[in-house]
Amino acid sequence: MKRLALLTSGGDAPGMNAAIRAIVLAGHYFGLDVIGYRHGFNGLLEQEYQTLMPSDVNNIIQRGGTILKSARCKAFTTEEGARQAADNLQQAGVDTLIIIGGDGSFRGAVHLSNFWSGSIIGLPGTIDNDINGTDATIGYYTAIDTALESIDKVRDTADAFERIFLIEVMGRHAGFIGLSAAVCSGAEQVLLPELYPNSQPDVEELVGHIQKAQQIRGKCSYIMVISENLWPGGATDLANQINARTGIDCRPVILGHVQRGGSPVSLDRMLASKLGAYAVEAALKGRTGIMIGECNQRMVEVPFEQTWNKPKELDPYLVRIQQEVFDLVKNSA
Amino acid sequence: MKRLALLTSGGDAPGMNAAIRAIVLAGHYFGLDVIGYRHGFNGLLEQEYQTLMPSDVNNIIQRGGTILKSARCKAFTTEEGARQAADNLQQAGVDTLIIIGGDGSFRGAVHLSNFWSGSIIGLPGTIDNDINGTDATIGYYTAIDTALESIDKVRDTADAFERIFLIEVMGRHAGFIGLSAAVCSGAEQVLLPELYPNSQPDVEELVGHIQKAQQIRGKCSYIMVISENLWPGGATDLANQINARTGIDCRPVILGHVQRGGSPVSLDRMLASKLGAYAVEAALKGRTGIMIGECNQRMVEVPFEQTWNKPKELDPYLVRIQQEVFDLVKNSA
Amino acid sequence: MKRLALLTSGGDAPGMNAAIRAIVLAGHYFGLDVIGYRHGFNGLLEQEYQTLMPSDVNNIIQRGGTILKSARCKAFTTEEGARQAADNLQQAGVDTLIIIGGDGSFRGAVHLSNFWSGSIIGLPGTIDNDINGTDATIGYYTAIDTALESIDKVRDTADAFERIFLIEVMGRHAGFIGLSAAVCSGAEQVLLPELYPNSQPDVEELVGHIQKAQQIRGKCSYIMVISENLWPGGATDLANQINARTGIDCRPVILGHVQRGGSPVSLDRMLASKLGAYAVEAALKGRTGIMIGECNQRMVEVPFEQTWNKPKELDPYLVRIQQEVFDLVKNSA
Amino acid sequence: MKRLALLTSGGDAPGMNAAIRAIVLAGHYFGLDVIGYRHGFNGLLEQEYQTLMPSDVNNIIQRGGTILKSARCKAFTTEEGARQAADNLQQAGVDTLIIIGGDGSFRGAVHLSNFWSGSIIGLPGTIDNDINGTDATIGYYTAIDTALESIDKVRDTADAFERIFLIEVMGRHAGFIGLSAAVCSGAEQVLLPELYPNSQPDVEELVGHIQKAQQIRGKCSYIMVISENLWPGGATDLANQINARTGIDCRPVILGHVQRGGSPVSLDRMLASKLGAYAVEAALKGRTGIMIGECNQRMVEVPFEQTWNKPKELDPYLVRIQQEVFDLVKNSA
Repeated sequence: MKRLALLTSGGDAPGMNAAIRAIVLAGHYFGLDVIGYRHGFNGLLEQEYQTLMPSDVNNIIQRGGTILKSARCKAFTTEEGARQAADNLQQAGVDTLIIIGGDGSFRGAVHLSNFWSGSIIGLPGTIDNDINGTDATIGYYTAIDTALESIDKVRDTADAFERIFLIEVMGRHAGFIGLSAAVCSGAEQVLLPELYPNSQPDVEELVGHIQKAQQIRGKCSYIMVISENLWPGGATDLANQINARTGIDCRPVILGHVQRGGSPVSLDRMLASKLGAYAVEAALKGRTGIMIGECNQRMVEVPFEQTWNKPKELDPYLVRIQQEVFDLVKNSA
Repeated sequence: MKRLALLTSGGDAPGMNAAIRAIVLAGHYFGLDVIGYRHGFNGLLEQEYQTLMPSDVNNIIQRGGTILKSARCKAFTTEEGARQAADNLQQAGVDTLIIIGGDGSFRGAVHLSNFWSGSIIGLPGTIDNDINGTDATIGYYTAIDTALESIDKVRDTADAFERIFLIEVMGRHAGFIGLSAAVCSGAEQVLLPELYPNSQPDVEELVGHIQKAQQIRGKCSYIMVISENLWPGGATDLANQINARTGIDCRPVILGHVQRGGSPVSLDRMLASKLGAYAVEAALKGRTGIMIGECNQRMVEVPFEQTWNKPKELDPYLVRIQQEVFDLVKNSA
Repeated sequence: MKRLALLTSGGDAPGMNAAIRAIVLAGHYFGLDVIGYRHGFNGLLEQEYQTLMPSDVNNIIQRGGTILKSARCKAFTTEEGARQAADNLQQAGVDTLIIIGGDGSFRGAVHLSNFWSGSIIGLPGTIDNDINGTDATIGYYTAIDTALESIDKVRDTADAFERIFLIEVMGRHAGFIGLSAAVCSGAEQVLLPELYPNSQPDVEELVGHIQKAQQIRGKCSYIMVISENLWPGGATDLANQINARTGIDCRPVILGHVQRGGSPVSLDRMLASKLGAYAVEAALKGRTGIMIGECNQRMVEVPFEQTWNKPKELDPYLVRIQQEVFDLVKNSA
Repeated sequence: MKRLALLTSGGDAPGMNAAIRAIVLAGHYFGLDVIGYRHGFNGLLEQEYQTLMPSDVNNIIQRGGTILKSARCKAFTTEEGARQAADNLQQAGVDTLIIIGGDGSFRGAVHLSNFWSGSIIGLPGTIDNDINGTDATIGYYTAIDTALESIDKVRDTADAFERIFLIEVMGRHAGFIGLSAAVCSGAEQVLLPELYPNSQPDVEELVGHIQKAQQIRGKCSYIMVISENLWPGGATDLANQINARTGIDCRPVILGHVQRGGSPVSLDRMLASKLGAYAVEAALKGRTGIMIGECNQRMVEVPFEQTWNKPKELDPYLVRIQQEVFDLVKNSA
């Protein structure tokens, strides 16, 4: 093994730069040549890459985004695209490719492996935490804190006006950010995709909960956290429906892309540093077709297919205490 | 003068608690009795008030929201409402009323003064900075920083993906938050109500600017800040129009109520502390019908009518450099 | 079981209020009476307590410090003190006592259990993370982020001046905060108690490392993180010695008590919420003499003695990569 | 005028990068060539400079530190040094030099002007705000907020333990940061150089104030803010003296270099943007020997000598309310 390449792909996540730094430093520590492709798989197709020296990753551990840029790449998903990528890797003398991204990126990795014999290793980089085989994904911790800081601020104004807010958070099709943000902000209600696998929240029930809460506490602030992609039309539509049916003034706040950026919090930097270093060590041992994760405080190697073959489970205890013990209405029953 | 009352009214703003603290401490320093009405003018109508001792305002200088709560109050705007409020103030032995709020609250103050002979003094409390007679309003500085922190985060992801974001900020009908947030974030474009007094931004022109920017810099991130209430349908609609007409992928982010909350930054605490203390001193001198402001680093007394009689002007130099000197396209011409 | 009491003891930690909230809500959920003693064990001796209703813990999840106050209490460590406490608990009708604190507080719990037959349950609340039987302690995550934010800022100025800074972080006699802060800030050097069990850092070696780093990178910023209590005289003295011996300008920064405060980050709120709820459930099952911890994402019950009987181990992989892979000098060898 | 050079000198301050960006963009807007010297006046002596294009200042507005680096430079203060600098400027074809720094840097500018006939313009860049002719200096606003955030955190732990903290803030020989931080944090006591022009705080008096505060409020937190360079031995020594004389447990916290770094807050970015653009415009008008400042919301041109010829005054109203109206002891008298 002589030449290590890396790229970031899919939605960006805070901590990707920390992972890049770790890979570059580890690569050089073990005497490898390191290059970085830009713009995800696009860079692979267009041979857009740069040498990465330790000095190139100086002072990036704290930066959001990714210095290698990211992108979606449709061309790569074809056989022709993957063959082109394989040729380019060979031509560039690359024998190991590390991909930082989500499950879409890992599917891309498997696709590429049909046409390229080099070693491919993945790191879980996504704010959504929807990847099996690792307790957390790079970027998830920062996203929760970002969402939480915003909800704390909304709480200030909700309290001042004793108002109802419906706050939409990210998570793609998973409720990790939603659940964490709800528990941590002391939200009065939380709507997660995992709680409605084949159904939808019932507006009457939601309204009923708000009304009971107001009976118990008097007029008061009430915060409902909702995951994106759960309600057709999103938080704005659901807030309108609640308003329309009851005259309750419920305001939507959509946190949006703010959740993807920012300087990574310490846990994301730490996770990214460990996964990045370990990925290089795994490559040196000849591993391929795996994602590096951290489970129960240990580095683990997970075949790509296992990272997406079933939905990752929310912490059942956290769900239970949020839905039962901390529920304002059930608590006062 | 023996009994001082205060209330917070209208939209809440970070620093209102710092103002409450300053008024309470100054009141006691000068030997007055201090009470606080809750829920804005509603509290006045419903005689909902509490004594405020120095210990009640301990450790609130750093809290967002308002410990006295705020609310809109329609009933107060009638003659009957104001008469009731006047009766209640008399009955409670109040001779001075300090109102922290925006121009709507000051109109309420003038309305009340037709029926009550006590002294009424206003403090400018709103994130929008749309009140004449003071360089800044309480809450404005925090709102800019909150908007800016969010835009900085969006920039991370915009840069990683070389994407275009349209970010809607608050400001009611004024562009103060929008202009400041745009200058401070290095935004590529800014759309403010003051720049379109009788017209609307032209979608073709906006698209043209984006395209020229991409010619100059190559594909790159591009951030457009837009004030709320400027475009019918808001940022979401405008982003859709830009997308539809050109295929450019432009994403909307609506910062929303997050901008109203949070621990006040130092300048809001400082302004609130000075204005609050000075309001009590002005009341002791028998002043009434005025707002206390700070202009050019001096405390000033401004008749209520002057606070709303014309639109407050943006800093023309700041507008000019943002629109000319810092404009990516003009800069490279 | 009818009456549940709780107290916070020892050094305060962000998230203690989140734990208090969880215990109070869970207590009421299960139909218990809940009271809180103030000022740690002092409140137990002086019968200083208050009833805690759900409304009392409204909106405290995000506050630093502890609404129940904390304190050290010498009197309690005597037999007489513990007997008095036991009498008071009996008189107050308490059958379960939950103590949030560090290992000193748990020793106090064991001491009390010799004189009182009620159920005693502990929650690990300390920024130092030096308690066995739980992956993290309440407050630890916030402390790392606080330290990290400060070090990131020092890095800005270190970079601008290409200067050497020696930054002292907390941790009592453990290197958890130091190691995490060093990895996450990309520190060039870290000095932890676990690395010097029976010795001391050698000033010549430290100077040698700085000089080699400067040979490799040219003049540049260099950040050395040191745990408190490691070097006699602390960071100030060590910086002086480095300066004196070499003429290198090395500046000390002692982060100090700033690390104990602040709004808890999401992970501390989540941990505190889970541990607090679980503690009440464990009490209902008749458990006593245990600390509730979280290991590998599961709630665990740990006999008090096991929490302090040996030093808690640092993550060996994290130590290794920081000391080897990320070491600037070894990396470039 | 064809070639514009700039440099940052003296202590770094958040917002210097925003100023660099503004100067570079304005320079190009007006058709000038722009270069940047590195490491302050050292770069001038060693001809260490780089061309600065708009793309070089992309995305730096939010970064702390200075991309041009800063340094102290003794060699420059000699006649020989200044002559060398003048020669180098001539050789590089520079006709205007913009210096971002404090009064030491402005003295350097005047020194240089004795040997070089080009135009020299200064921008006030220092966290200390100790420069006449401008209401605020670049970096000051961020430094207050940084100090304040730390003090807010210390307040959490001070409150939990009802403890006394002595917090040392920066400011060189001026009390701007100290006064602002004290007012904004609701500090119980503040010690500023301006309050002790020819004397020193009296330890007995300080102790007396603490004791009276505790009589009034019961045991409680107490925060004393002290400016650096005021007490020989600093906060640590003063805390020791208070402890020694009374047995009161008073803990020192020295905020230190943390105050110099961090992403600049909005007001620093705005000030830097305006001053930077205006400096280029002033240069184009042939101005020299002046600092650009902002007074009462207008850009002003101030001869260098006037920036340091007398101590800048604290806001007397702010001093008075902090020392009188908000004084816990006087307030309750």
